[in-house]
Amino acid sequence: MTTSSESFHKVNFATPRSFATAFKSDLKETLFPDDPFQEFKNEPFSRKTKKAIQYFVPIFDWLPKYNLSLFKYDLLAGITIASLAIPQGISYAKLANIPPIIGLYSSFVPPLVYAIFGSSKHLAVGTVAACSLLIGSIIGEKVSPIDNPKLYLDLVFTATFITGLFQTALGFLRLGILVDFLSHSTITGFMGGTATIICLQQLKGMFGLKHFTTKTDVVSVLRTIFSHRNEKQKRARLFWVSAIAPMLVVATGCLFAYFAHAEKHGIQIVGDLKKGINPISLTNLNFDSKYISAALKAGIITAMVALAEGIAIGRSFAIMKNEQIDGNKEMIAFGFMNIVGSFTSCYLTTGPFSKTAINFNAGCKTAMANVVMAICMMLTLLFLAPLFSYTPLVGLSAIIMSAMLGLIEYEKAYHLFKTDKFDFCICMVAFFGVAFVSMDVGLMLSVGLAILRALLYVARPATCKLGSISNSTLYRDVEQYPEATGVPGILVLQLGSPLYFSNCTYIRERILRWVRDEQAATNSKGNDIEHVLLDLGGVTSIDITGVETLIEVFKSMEARGIKVGFVNPRLEVLEKLTVTKFIEIIGKEDVFLSIKDAVETCTFTLRSSKQFDDA
Amino acid sequence: MTTSSESFHKVNFATPRSFATAFKSDLKETLFPDDPFQEFKNEPFSRKTKKAIQYFVPIFDWLPKYNLSLFKYDLLAGITIASLAIPQGISYAKLANIPPIIGLYSSFVPPLVYAIFGSSKHLAVGTVAACSLLIGSIIGEKVSPIDNPKLYLDLVFTATFITGLFQTALGFLRLGILVDFLSHSTITGFMGGTATIICLQQLKGMFGLKHFTTKTDVVSVLRTIFSHRNEKQKRARLFWVSAIAPMLVVATGCLFAYFAHAEKHGIQIVGDLKKGINPISLTNLNFDSKYISAALKAGIITAMVALAEGIAIGRSFAIMKNEQIDGNKEMIAFGFMNIVGSFTSCYLTTGPFSKTAINFNAGCKTAMANVVMAICMMLTLLFLAPLFSYTPLVGLSAIIMSAMLGLIEYEKAYHLFKTDKFDFCICMVAFFGVAFVSMDVGLMLSVGLAILRALLYVARPATCKLGSISNSTLYRDVEQYPEATGVPGILVLQLGSPLYFSNCTYIRERILRWVRDEQAATNSKGNDIEHVLLDLGGVTSIDITGVETLIEVFKSMEARGIKVGFVNPRLEVLEKLTVTKFIEIIGKEDVFLSIKDAVETCTFTLRSSKQFDDA
Repeated sequence: MTTSSESFHKVNFATPRSFATAFKSDLKETLFPDDPFQEFKNEPFSRKTKKAIQYFVPIFDWLPKYNLSLFKYDLLAGITIASLAIPQGISYAKLANIPPIIGLYSSFVPPLVYAIFGSSKHLAVGTVAACSLLIGSIIGEKVSPIDNPKLYLDLVFTATFITGLFQTALGFLRLGILVDFLSHSTITGFMGGTATIICLQQLKGMFGLKHFTTKTDVVSVLRTIFSHRNEKQKRARLFWVSAIAPMLVVATGCLFAYFAHAEKHGIQIVGDLKKGINPISLTNLNFDSKYISAALKAGIITAMVALAEGIAIGRSFAIMKNEQIDGNKEMIAFGFMNIVGSFTSCYLTTGPFSKTAINFNAGCKTAMANVVMAICMMLTLLFLAPLFSYTPLVGLSAIIMSAMLGLIEYEKAYHLFKTDKFDFCICMVAFFGVAFVSMDVGLMLSVGLAILRALLYVARPATCKLGSISNSTLYRDVEQYPEATGVPGILVLQLGSPLYFSNCTYIRERILRWVRDEQAATNSKGNDIEHVLLDLGGVTSIDITGVETLIEVFKSMEARGIKVGFVNPRLEVLEKLTVTKFIEIIGKEDVFLSIKDAVETCTFTLRSSKQFDDA
Repeated sequence: MTTSSESFHKVNFATPRSFATAFKSDLKETLFPDDPFQEFKNEPFSRKTKKAIQYFVPIFDWLPKYNLSLFKYDLLAGITIASLAIPQGISYAKLANIPPIIGLYSSFVPPLVYAIFGSSKHLAVGTVAACSLLIGSIIGEKVSPIDNPKLYLDLVFTATFITGLFQTALGFLRLGILVDFLSHSTITGFMGGTATIICLQQLKGMFGLKHFTTKTDVVSVLRTIFSHRNEKQKRARLFWVSAIAPMLVVATGCLFAYFAHAEKHGIQIVGDLKKGINPISLTNLNFDSKYISAALKAGIITAMVALAEGIAIGRSFAIMKNEQIDGNKEMIAFGFMNIVGSFTSCYLTTGPFSKTAINFNAGCKTAMANVVMAICMMLTLLFLAPLFSYTPLVGLSAIIMSAMLGLIEYEKAYHLFKTDKFDFCICMVAFFGVAFVSMDVGLMLSVGLAILRALLYVARPATCKLGSISNSTLYRDVEQYPEATGVPGILVLQLGSPLYFSNCTYIRERILRWVRDEQAATNSKGNDIEHVLLDLGGVTSIDITGVETLIEVFKSMEARGIKVGFVNPRLEVLEKLTVTKFIEIIGKEDVFLSIKDAVETCTFTLRSSKQFDDA
């Protein structure tokens, strides 16, 4: 090993960036990670304006390029999802304890709004079971849907309005980051738990009908639908089976109920579906201080859940087609859709998984599919609505259950169990919390646990001892690469993650322990540690307490006669070290660009001191 | 550049550790970072037991080695801190709105308990202003100390008991990690805010006396004490001036009040201090469900604040002497001290900064100084207590204010402002929250903000583009080292921090943006990107969503004809990648040990494909 100082690479001790520059850069990374305005740079004003409009209102981007051949696909897809929207709309409205017609209204206006502002090509707008139940259970705590249906419905609209407002605000404030805290594990558990309670509710309803219809019938209906779902999961080409199955159930049920006069035999039907499109509900919004807390709670929680589902789904289909979705823009589109919805007798809508998958499989090309669906819904509302009033409730229960059973992803939970026990716990907390306590409590517990884990990551960052890999200048974790050997008298430690108030105590204790362990191990061999090198390459940022900790480590090592060197501090860390005069305290000569340089310097010092001892 | 595959270093694809092994290792790092049982290994049972007792009850460790020459130092230090404990005890009890005698009781029993279980040699036990005020304000919300002093006092004892229980539990559960979340910035702001409101309170009290005593007197008292404090901070050798100043003020005040019959002239005195040591207060503890919530709140919040102060202080003095403090053991000692205290008419005690500094400067050697102080207090309680009943309240106000003004560390706040704006915000939130809203709200807001920052670190980890530093195998951030050059056709990106559900979306967007930017930059030159290398060396851990994100990035790059390679995954990450079959999906040949190896492989592929194109 030579100590030719020419081969050394210098650390860049440039003057730190000003606060404004650093802050601007941090803010941009936090709020605009996808750099949406990048393509506006260096463009004349008129083009900039046009691009900005196209950016914020995507319909101006795709509609001018739209043509008939695309429309053929969108027409088919739109009709397909409309055939799903009718039975689902009626069913989920029942879950939210609101009149079934509201479910149909909700598939008319919101898809039109989404078609204008939404950036996903595959997303199909509609109501979702989990949010319907959630909104119903939170508002239902305050106002009974049976005793006071008018007030209850008004509060559902109010909650929808708040959802929209909250989603729009999140989008404008670029706070998509909040949705990031709903992890896949939480969603899996939450959906599974919700599906379980919905199924149990429906079963209760079904068994209540036992003496009117034969048990076998219910089972056979279920069995038919189950087999459809399983096939769908196995072969995407058979998607249309599951796409039209619910409509078939409803149609068959209606025909049966109509001709058999089912309602006279005690089989409950939906009843009372008036012709006509959405009435205006702007004046129905109720901001009475007595009820506003329930509306706020329902609005905000469902907003988060709906966003998490809608954005995740839009994104996963975009990935399949290698397209890009802007989460924040999607939030604004969802927000507008719900605000306008709440003014026109719609309740909460988002991009449900089942509908989007069917839309995708039916070959949709643009958001025009949503427009086609909206037109189909309009025609239904204007002419066909009364027909669906004969839909037997038992059929709706079957539709709901079939949709719900697909949401219990026990395979995914098992996968989590096999690969990450903590993720599995987060999932199970959501599942059991939702199933046994309440939907909001389960969700919040699970998110809390996930945040706790994030904090633990910050609080207990991994450190490891590095050894030299032979025939190379590489230093790697000795636990991972047992063949890596240490250099006598030098202890090389790698610190990971930000160095931060919440982990400083740990880091200090851990470094001291590494030194103690190393001393215990080498004492017998007579090679005392004289140098500790801290590899800061993995330390992405540092705060005041972190800098103080490094100083403490430096001093307490000095007291033991051990020199501390710092290797490869990153830009932000080096800036902080410079500003806090840390570099002045320890001296620039103890900061190295690579472990190799540091080890060579230390070896040189060791050898000189040994020669000195020998002489 | 040669592509000799012999010079390549292999990634260790060993079978992942079992869940039990990994979990045990994680648990140990989280809860026992200092590895306290390390020295018990390989010892016979009898020695093990002895060591364990010495470990858990430190007095057995130091008392056998104790001798007279050590005692001389401890005696002096003990008497010094006792002379501080008397005026402070009386003053702070007033802040908590409890009888002043309780303040004296609190310096008798708890120091004895701490001497047995505490592991710090320098810590002096006593009451603290901030916690006294905090406990008083929280209990005072529920029960008035004037209308119902008996119940109020009982609740203070109950809160102290809960504090003790909570601290002991935290210590046994090794949850010292919780205290880590009270950052220096929070504490600085909290203490400053508390000191400000205490000062304002005292000033009010003082100006209320305006027409009895001349204003100049108050100012002069303050000025005397200020000058003492400033000298103390500048020269540690003059510490005894500040050490005995409060006692002098009290003694002079008492003499004056006694001979001038001050109470007849309207100058308020402490009054009513009975002889006798602590009465038992075990039966006074009140767990009435009507009041338990206030006691719980006061107990838990003060427990955290007291721990943060006590542990931080013990630790900083230990660092000066290069000794080690076990935070979890300290918690148990504090907990025992407060539990026993609550049974013997004491209220909350911890290790206050002022007293500990004076103890340290007076030359204390062991916890025996606390025993000496306790004996002094016992003698005071038995024989001298009534003398102190003549202490004028205005003198106490002066003592409190002098102590408080030292806690307003505007220099530290300015230092924070200069070096870390976010830390400064955290500090200011605590300061203004405490000063203008309430102590608990201010504290929680500040902690919340600090946690939010920790979460932001996790949510927005730093990524950077790496370039090759000439004449070396090093790859460094091109922003930090502008001379580092990229390799044509290859984009090397470094990911920092854990890859985790809360930052996955960001990481994916950011990688895509790096690729877009790079493509835009190189398109003009005609060098398309064909390889993206992700340096995972800084990724300390990964969860399921993180693995899924890597797969998504891999697939979406593949769709664009770009190959993705992964460099230097760390132990835990590689395990997770293996368990989730990720390695199988991407192939072992795309995982490299160093960037150099990866770049050489890619260059080789690039060159072959180019030759192919040319041919």
